[in-house]
Amino acid sequence: MTRLTQARIETLASAALLRHGASERQAGALAAAIAAAEHDGLKSHGLMYLPTYCEHLTCGKVLGQAEPRLTQPAPAVVAVDAANGFAHAAIALGLPALIEAARSQGVAALAIRNSYNCGALGYHTESIARNGLVGLGFTNAPASIAPWGGRKAALGTNPWSLAVPDGRGGARFVIDQSASVVAKSEVIKRARAGEPIPAGWAFDASGETTTDAGEALKGTMAPAGGYKGVGSALLVEIFAACLTGANPGLVASPFSGTAGGPPGTGQFFLAVSPEATSAGAFAGNLETVAGAFNGEARLPGTRRFGARERNATEGIEVAAETLATLEKLAGTAA
Amino acid sequence: MTRLTQARIETLASAALLRHGASERQAGALAAAIAAAEHDGLKSHGLMYLPTYCEHLTCGKVLGQAEPRLTQPAPAVVAVDAANGFAHAAIALGLPALIEAARSQGVAALAIRNSYNCGALGYHTESIARNGLVGLGFTNAPASIAPWGGRKAALGTNPWSLAVPDGRGGARFVIDQSASVVAKSEVIKRARAGEPIPAGWAFDASGETTTDAGEALKGTMAPAGGYKGVGSALLVEIFAACLTGANPGLVASPFSGTAGGPPGTGQFFLAVSPEATSAGAFAGNLETVAGAFNGEARLPGTRRFGARERNATEGIEVAAETLATLEKLAGTAA
Repeated sequence: MTRLTQARIETLASAALLRHGASERQAGALAAAIAAAEHDGLKSHGLMYLPTYCEHLTCGKVLGQAEPRLTQPAPAVVAVDAANGFAHAAIALGLPALIEAARSQGVAALAIRNSYNCGALGYHTESIARNGLVGLGFTNAPASIAPWGGRKAALGTNPWSLAVPDGRGGARFVIDQSASVVAKSEVIKRARAGEPIPAGWAFDASGETTTDAGEALKGTMAPAGGYKGVGSALLVEIFAACLTGANPGLVASPFSGTAGGPPGTGQFFLAVSPEATSAGAFAGNLETVAGAFNGEARLPGTRRFGARERNATEGIEVAAETLATLEKLAGTAA
Repeated sequence: MTRLTQARIETLASAALLRHGASERQAGALAAAIAAAEHDGLKSHGLMYLPTYCEHLTCGKVLGQAEPRLTQPAPAVVAVDAANGFAHAAIALGLPALIEAARSQGVAALAIRNSYNCGALGYHTESIARNGLVGLGFTNAPASIAPWGGRKAALGTNPWSLAVPDGRGGARFVIDQSASVVAKSEVIKRARAGEPIPAGWAFDASGETTTDAGEALKGTMAPAGGYKGVGSALLVEIFAACLTGANPGLVASPFSGTAGGPPGTGQFFLAVSPEATSAGAFAGNLETVAGAFNGEARLPGTRRFGARERNATEGIEVAAETLATLEKLAGTAA
């Protein structure tokens, strides 16, 4: 175990991506997000994925030299064609235009197509909140959830994220939640280890609850809250795929492995100006709502903010093996 | 049991509301929604609530002569102060302006404050979808859900609704789901009957799962999907209360009973133009997503559409007791 600064992780991650064929634009946007995820203690969205990203640059699942293209088809709509590059470069291009449109129009949308896995969705909505706007984001994924009572996967684990501005240039809280009971990676981990999964996490190919991780991978992921989780995944699919013109999860190629070419999934972000909609009541109402969590439970995102504060002073813990992989990918290994 | 037409139900409901002090504007908007709920087989949002509505007009929880006021604080934002009248009159005033703004700006928002229970949320989002726009709606309610792991209610059962246009002047499907496992009315019903509730529906005052309906009413409603249900309720609260300047559920008076004056809750609607955001891909992608439900499960709202079709030809079944109450309230009883 060693400790690195956020800047050092960003530099190494960027070097690794550049070395595998990404342009400065593509590598820069993704490396910043990877370093921020590590900074926030979100290991599952940090350096863990870097080998996959590099592999996807090499096999052509991601086009490292892609130039995202921005259009503004309506006064309150920004559209970005990610051109099958990383989602991060497309979102980075679109966010300033989204924020400007939301400030002038009161509400605005950013629709991204021909995109890819965007990592932690809350990273992007928090950027919106830092600009004093409520940010709501949707991103879709290859299908792994069946309609309730069905057997065939129709929708991805499709997360949505809400980030709420604190009025001081930060986020009061960030929600970032998928439509499934647990992340599919938790099932994969147990299947590899030959361990069972708890009942309620997944269904087998015949649609029955299973505790066998291997059978679960042949079936579907359980939606959180039963049919309401399917509703949540469907909401996200309408925004992230249908409204953007991106690939629905049913036809998107997998985010893992090297087969199938670019997934071409999408992201959709809404930015809403509290000044435009709330007649000055936003901040007071927000404190009433947030105050109701006092002494009861943590507001969503609290753990993320806590890790961020700790890591800023103590440095970010990186496993020796992870650092070795990072340096090898970046070509800086001894 | 007798059968009535939708028009007859609307006429009688309107007469009842007028007789209890509602203006033509207030009575008309609500009566149309009550008749539509009956037409859609949504008995829980139909005539069942009419006695409560009349009682609330009499006791001043709703101001029957309220004149909702519309402003457009930004090009893509419509705000309506419901002035503590029925939500329906405020939404009816705001929807045409929302739709016009969404068509010209690509996306638009309707924020409603000083409002009331809006009945079936999907009734309103479907109106948006009938205009060729994706409609997303949020409405908040008095607090009955605790933060996950907590004991004190912080958020209402706060539903959201999504209605998706079918490109032919109708809705392809409508999702309308609350943040709780079941509606609170289901618990109230069993408490009155002295019956137990299934485990998982609610918590007692100490935060423990209970099967005692009476103890559950002293505690909180269980969120669907655990902490993710709380996240869903929080999302709705930010939009319906914080962004509108309406009363958060924590301070809103109850929707039932006669105490506490107007609840002053809120609604928030988003309308998105698929033409503006999807570069022509919306209809095709929607059919891919909807097609994945074929042979698996019904799309959300299918039951509602089925009842609508049946009731249009066969008439709407109304229990004798309900009709007697309706005629008494309307002053048309023999």
